[in-house]
Amino acid sequence: MNIETFILQMAQLAKKASIRMSRCDTEAKNRALIRLADRIEREASFLKAENQRDLDGAAKAGLSKAMMDRLTLKEATLESMAKGLRDVAGLEDPVGAVVKTWMRPNGIQVSRVRIPLGVIGIIYESRPNVTVDAAALCLKAGNAVILRGGSESQHSNTALAAVIGKALEEAGLPGDAVQVIPVSDRKAVLAMLQAEEFIDLIIPRGGEGLIRFVAQNSRIPVLKHYKGVCHVYVDDGADLTMAKKICLNAKVQRPGVCNAMETLLVHQAIADAFLPEMAAQFREAGVEIRGCPKTCRILPLAKAAKEEDWPAEYLDLILAVKVVSGMDDAIDHITRYGSNHTDAIVTCDYSRARRFVREVDSSVVLVNASTRFNDGGQLGLGAEIGISTSKLHAFGPMGLEELTTTKFVVFGNGQVRTE
Amino acid sequence: MNIETFILQMAQLAKKASIRMSRCDTEAKNRALIRLADRIEREASFLKAENQRDLDGAAKAGLSKAMMDRLTLKEATLESMAKGLRDVAGLEDPVGAVVKTWMRPNGIQVSRVRIPLGVIGIIYESRPNVTVDAAALCLKAGNAVILRGGSESQHSNTALAAVIGKALEEAGLPGDAVQVIPVSDRKAVLAMLQAEEFIDLIIPRGGEGLIRFVAQNSRIPVLKHYKGVCHVYVDDGADLTMAKKICLNAKVQRPGVCNAMETLLVHQAIADAFLPEMAAQFREAGVEIRGCPKTCRILPLAKAAKEEDWPAEYLDLILAVKVVSGMDDAIDHITRYGSNHTDAIVTCDYSRARRFVREVDSSVVLVNASTRFNDGGQLGLGAEIGISTSKLHAFGPMGLEELTTTKFVVFGNGQVRTE
Repeated sequence: MNIETFILQMAQLAKKASIRMSRCDTEAKNRALIRLADRIEREASFLKAENQRDLDGAAKAGLSKAMMDRLTLKEATLESMAKGLRDVAGLEDPVGAVVKTWMRPNGIQVSRVRIPLGVIGIIYESRPNVTVDAAALCLKAGNAVILRGGSESQHSNTALAAVIGKALEEAGLPGDAVQVIPVSDRKAVLAMLQAEEFIDLIIPRGGEGLIRFVAQNSRIPVLKHYKGVCHVYVDDGADLTMAKKICLNAKVQRPGVCNAMETLLVHQAIADAFLPEMAAQFREAGVEIRGCPKTCRILPLAKAAKEEDWPAEYLDLILAVKVVSGMDDAIDHITRYGSNHTDAIVTCDYSRARRFVREVDSSVVLVNASTRFNDGGQLGLGAEIGISTSKLHAFGPMGLEELTTTKFVVFGNGQVRTE
Repeated sequence: MNIETFILQMAQLAKKASIRMSRCDTEAKNRALIRLADRIEREASFLKAENQRDLDGAAKAGLSKAMMDRLTLKEATLESMAKGLRDVAGLEDPVGAVVKTWMRPNGIQVSRVRIPLGVIGIIYESRPNVTVDAAALCLKAGNAVILRGGSESQHSNTALAAVIGKALEEAGLPGDAVQVIPVSDRKAVLAMLQAEEFIDLIIPRGGEGLIRFVAQNSRIPVLKHYKGVCHVYVDDGADLTMAKKICLNAKVQRPGVCNAMETLLVHQAIADAFLPEMAAQFREAGVEIRGCPKTCRILPLAKAAKEEDWPAEYLDLILAVKVVSGMDDAIDHITRYGSNHTDAIVTCDYSRARRFVREVDSSVVLVNASTRFNDGGQLGLGAEIGISTSKLHAFGPMGLEELTTTKFVVFGNGQVRTE
């Protein structure tokens, strides 16, 4: 059988499983999640043995220490997987929720009711814990899922899929509701991206290259963000102690993630008072500063920023700094170079706070808080399957609700349309 | 300038205009809608003269009487356009609505706030009133819009665009917020579908051919429905008088639209009691019946249905009829041949009503009401820009809310992330 046919058959099985999933109750889904948690603990040695095969392959292929680390299923990784599953079991089931109900003059009652999306395809890179985390969220929202992890973690993912399948069937759910593509051929991804008849949504998770490849080749809707070029704007009259705390957190607490600050914008009226001390804190934290000419005049140790620094997502201890003339300048800069991901203002001014919130077109806009809060868990969604910076369907962190849609349900007693 | 560059420039202007639109208040948008209504009345003779140029061209090209009719801007068409605009001005503005607000344990306040989508591309066939109706809804939801109508209505659409632009600028809004593509070259549509950097959503309105062309060539998300193969299932024990009224309405009130019934499913236990009288009513209304073998035994005048009748969208006075053995059979038939558009059950049974509503995967599912209610106006959305049968972003009729998305707004007082 060629790979395209094989993937199409997987997708068909997923579609069938998704119909059963959409009709099953919360209890059955939670039972499956808890059984899966138990099984992951019980079958730890099997999972670690399969993971070791990936690690052996990765060592031969000369993967970096950091990559090897991400690939390893440690005891603690398995424990946190199991805990994650029990947490998802504890989350509220979005399916069946009545979002709104109203009556029409003719007496029909109209409701919008939450339903699963159907079949979700997830394409991701090396970390095998995504296999379990993503599957759990898709299942809880009543969907079937097809997972395609990195080729380095093929054995780990296939082993996890086997364990997931057993847990699903134990709980009376269709084993095909979670399938892992067992080949690393890129043709498999392409075939998946063309199976629009059976797959309802694709979520790519990984570097910009992977995401662009998926977006460019998919005939199925894709929820994605390419990058997070996040800004903090420190306004004239801001509480500078607060500003320093927020900026330091936004830049250094975890510089390698998409919600870390990449560019700091400072109002010219406070630049002299703010930047030297801020820069000292950054220096202590190992942050390299690349500044606009005004910044460099205030901070003689700063490197000069080039044009390519303004749209850069460093994901590293590097920060672009620009002194701006005020709100207009700050918002224009964000509109031009930002990525619609996360932007914050530090201000004490009521109307400028309101204006920033209204005019900055990002999925999460913050006043006097760190950009690092753009995260499903931190914002209280309970979980996160990814972050979207495109506006269709979801904008910002996506939790369980974003893995569902709504249908209209109409109850009548014989009404017909007359005009 | 080649056509691709030209379209890209239009899209860029639209993006710029969309930023201004997203920041303007409800009053300005309503003012523009009302000025436009006034202008359409005032400039009726100009609009009719331009429309006459299209009609002359269409007559030469030998367009059918029905097509000519759809193309004509009569006095009544213009009046209903103006009325429609004043109605849209009266609708609630979705932008800025706070969908939900909650506090996190660390004291940040998180809200989801409704914002416009950005730039919407609408591709439609001959009727020029779509130009004004669609533009009005996009504007009210704070978006910019690029319209591409049929080549037959090129002069009418360009004239309407000029009038719209004047009304927008009179109201202090950017004239580029509504643009009509002034060429009928198909390359223009292709270029539009590739402008993903500037256009956020494409809505095609027209026949299945147009919609498939758009879906297959778009790099931008598309909201669409291919067809409406709508079912009514008359259950065992249903109120047969109600069933006849609903089925007649669903089939004949307006047979050429997507929410008309195309297949009638009848429980075997009531087929003998129900079908002969129902068929007599259909015969009187000029409906041709194509039945399964059991139907044909009960209705000797019925034609025999072929396999291709079950997935057919006749859009005409033709009806496929199948006798089913019960709920399982009915739901399986709908799952297999339906189009996720609109399906109804007529029943007196509580648990079968609940089961139908839960298991039928259509954008609008009705109990004891006509399929003809799948319509934004009828369901109380205030207006309708189209119907979606794909599940991402919108499923079912789309009103003003579906032309928006939400962003997260976070208010803090210095919070940073600690873990």
